Amino acid sequence: MVILGIDPGLAIVGWGVVSYDGVRFKTLGYGSIQTPAGTPTQKRLEMIWQGMNELFERYKPDQMAVEELFFNTNVTTGISVAEARGVILLSGIQHGITVAEYTPLQVKQAVVGYGRAEKKQVITMVTTLLGLPKPPKPDDTADALAIAVCHAHSGCSRLADYYNK
Amino acid sequence: MVILGIDPGLAIVGWGVVSYDGVRFKTLGYGSIQTPAGTPTQKRLEMIWQGMNELFERYKPDQMAVEELFFNTNVTTGISVAEARGVILLSGIQHGITVAEYTPLQVKQAVVGYGRAEKKQVITMVTTLLGLPKPPKPDDTADALAIAVCHAHSGCSRLADYYNK
Repeated sequence: MVILGIDPGLAIVGWGVVSYDGVRFKTLGYGSIQTPAGTPTQKRLEMIWQGMNELFERYKPDQMAVEELFFNTNVTTGISVAEARGVILLSGIQHGITVAEYTPLQVKQAVVGYGRAEKKQVITMVTTLLGLPKPPKPDDTADALAIAVCHAHSGCSRLADYYNK
Repeated sequence: MVILGIDPGLAIVGWGVVSYDGVRFKTLGYGSIQTPAGTPTQKRLEMIWQGMNELFERYKPDQMAVEELFFNTNVTTGISVAEARGVILLSGIQHGITVAEYTPLQVKQAVVGYGRAEKKQVITMVTTLLGLPKPPKPDDTADALAIAVCHAHSGCSRLADYYNK
């Protein structure tokens, strides 16, 4: 099964694609869709939509997992992230892919085994677990891979339940 | 000039289309895109995207105006509205239409002449100004028409400035 993990944002969308056979992970690709500051929001959203379409066409994922949003810190940034997230969810369903959603706490729990782990621990764990040559950059990319791993570990069965409803 | 006004939401997207020649308004159409509660968010976003595309194709607006978001009340609802708004902005640029954005205060100021006007006053004013047979329902539709009127009154020149940058 091929899983696309997404860390949503307007400036940077982290993405990571892994395949998982129930035992082993294989990393198929990772990176980020970046949109330049100063570009109108609409244009940035279009760039994200196009970037997502390319990912769906290149990797043909079976499932997709995206981080849930929380607005603890900056509400204005939060609105932009949510707008980008809407476009990401749309591109998913346009390719027939239903999304699974995880909180940052669930992702850390699944990857590090501890919900209050620090970002650095998540990055180290993802790098080790997937046997990457070095920590993926930017951090959003590592986060996206962590979300994909979290979905593989904890979510596939839940999503299967969802489909069987 | 044909203006599409949008009041964004996940459950209800209000829309209104007016033409304005600098003196008079003509109402070309109004209504709402509604998505059923209990439908998965992704599906609702797709329905909104399709509904927007139909509006762009039917009315071929020259300009588009959307209400800005504020998260005073319910942050969870706010995230959903922002996700829908991202899809609405995307559909705009996919039809070559740049969006103008107005705060609720600006809309009330432009339509009623008083930024702290009540919703009921806005509806009455829009109904009178556009010579509608009765107040448009749901309220989101009246809001969308108010946004279009606001853009006609106050925004077209600003948007022109934007294009000429």
